[in-house]
Amino acid sequence: MLKNDLLLKALRRESVTRPPVWMMRQAGRYLPEYQVLKSKYDFFTRVQTPELACEITLQPIHRVGVDAAIIFSDILVIPQALGMTVLMEEGKGPLLPHTISTQKDIDLLNENAIVEKLHYVFSAISLTKRELNDQVPLIGFAGAPFTLLCYMVEGKGSKGFEKAKAFCFTNPELAKALLSKITRATISYLKEQVRAGADVIQVFDSWSGLLSPDDFDRFAAPYLVEIADALAPLAPVILFPKGSSYALSSLSHQKSVSGIGIDWGVLPETARHEAGKRVALQGNFDPSKLGMSVTEIKKEVTQMIRRFGVQGYIANLGHGILPNIPVDHAKAFVDVVKEYKESN
Amino acid sequence: MLKNDLLLKALRRESVTRPPVWMMRQAGRYLPEYQVLKSKYDFFTRVQTPELACEITLQPIHRVGVDAAIIFSDILVIPQALGMTVLMEEGKGPLLPHTISTQKDIDLLNENAIVEKLHYVFSAISLTKRELNDQVPLIGFAGAPFTLLCYMVEGKGSKGFEKAKAFCFTNPELAKALLSKITRATISYLKEQVRAGADVIQVFDSWSGLLSPDDFDRFAAPYLVEIADALAPLAPVILFPKGSSYALSSLSHQKSVSGIGIDWGVLPETARHEAGKRVALQGNFDPSKLGMSVTEIKKEVTQMIRRFGVQGYIANLGHGILPNIPVDHAKAFVDVVKEYKESN
Repeated sequence: MLKNDLLLKALRRESVTRPPVWMMRQAGRYLPEYQVLKSKYDFFTRVQTPELACEITLQPIHRVGVDAAIIFSDILVIPQALGMTVLMEEGKGPLLPHTISTQKDIDLLNENAIVEKLHYVFSAISLTKRELNDQVPLIGFAGAPFTLLCYMVEGKGSKGFEKAKAFCFTNPELAKALLSKITRATISYLKEQVRAGADVIQVFDSWSGLLSPDDFDRFAAPYLVEIADALAPLAPVILFPKGSSYALSSLSHQKSVSGIGIDWGVLPETARHEAGKRVALQGNFDPSKLGMSVTEIKKEVTQMIRRFGVQGYIANLGHGILPNIPVDHAKAFVDVVKEYKESN
Repeated sequence: MLKNDLLLKALRRESVTRPPVWMMRQAGRYLPEYQVLKSKYDFFTRVQTPELACEITLQPIHRVGVDAAIIFSDILVIPQALGMTVLMEEGKGPLLPHTISTQKDIDLLNENAIVEKLHYVFSAISLTKRELNDQVPLIGFAGAPFTLLCYMVEGKGSKGFEKAKAFCFTNPELAKALLSKITRATISYLKEQVRAGADVIQVFDSWSGLLSPDDFDRFAAPYLVEIADALAPLAPVILFPKGSSYALSSLSHQKSVSGIGIDWGVLPETARHEAGKRVALQGNFDPSKLGMSVTEIKKEVTQMIRRFGVQGYIANLGHGILPNIPVDHAKAFVDVVKEYKESN
């Protein structure tokens, strides 16, 4: 039994006295104790060594007291486990030198070895669950199929992922074959994360907002829903289709979806109107605002909670925390949510 | 009298038999004849030499037969004319080595020399108007104050312009002083463009979508409206707050706004619902879709027109054309709009 099950309660839309709070990318980046590990071990060593991934996952629990841990890992472990080369140069972003462009490329991706190849993630989850000692829930995660396709086709980060999108538009059947293969691999991967101890699953569609609402319905939504449908019997599922607030209404009608993450591009009132009370909403503080003074942060976060309402709401940023944010600003964000009283 | 005044009619919401069509960034990039000039003259030579700017502006009129010309220039001529150093390295984007961070930096910007320093733009407009011989209208343009602030504070292109946004959030009064100064300079600049012959004015807020709806109302909207109010008595104004479709309803209620540009992140039906018939809508074809076959392009564009409706609509891309698009695909985009019949 979890000592702090606020996150699970919010995802089940059960009554809470205050919203749960965690921060995207809380494991890493802005924490000095993470920078120490970063200077000693390269990226994939940190990701692939369960003891390191566990330590990094626990750092923000100790330091800023969030209501959930999220396993330290990366969305690109899936393309890697499917057989692609993924290089990660510090400060430069990912590089996949051999990109996908043909049916043959897709056929060569080996989805059967996923669970075996990603054993280090499951070990990290088991170890972290043990160390957490049921203090707070542990979130497992994966990248959404469309977002992974973006990297697998484009080969690197990009502002608009035009090459990946052109691939989808000019070869929709090939794109769908690739998306289906990624989806199957992701489902195996996430199921195993739950078996290893993950209490909640979040799926990050970081680039879905580059798609029009119609193309989101073709290339993103079906695969998000397929994953949610497969995982929902095992753990609550949060979808985070960044920049796709146009999909709030349709996704919130999916019974398998417990929570939807939103960035700051949509007003709390609009988001709540679109999603109704069918799902918990998670977000949507602009990460740049953590640069404001602690007093200002507390004022804005309080207002945000008031606008979303305490029930069915998970306080979070609308995207990852920025590396230059002072730790006490991150802590102020967490503290003000924990101090929130309905009468505020 | 213009021989082809479809664009003006659409902006006045007068009845037309088909929508006007032009393409953002049509002057340049994808045209081989532009690449020839690019290989001979550096960026600011092309921008600052009226004969070159005129030639580049006319190229797409001859090549793909759009219904409007847009003067070849750059949004960063305003920071430059205000006294900032702006470097443009081919393929690398802009660099402003001395960024704005204090009141003193803002005070040092000289708004009085704007018209004098930007004479080359007005000469280019006069020359182009003469060469166009009233064939199609000529669009003048400027960057919106928030987007210019982004570059002036950040110093370079960025995915999230976090430094610029943090500047706004932590120093709102300073940000507003800067935005007001840019706004005044932009109004002088655009008025002079109209005097030189521009028939329509478009204001590009390329980065406004990085702001939440509330912050858009603080840091973007007031300055867009101030510009529209000042220019509307002289020429119809199109605002293009990219990624800010949340502002469609409020901006469309401004009497000084004749058209609003939208990217592909919003459905035609939703955009029309939000904007009503108060303004012309311009967009919203995903530029990546010009990679599709000519047949597919024609199918999708026809569908787009049907969804927006012929009246009060300007066919365009939702953002700039990509450099790798074949010219006959760009031409297909234009042709299918020109061939459109209400009965389609």
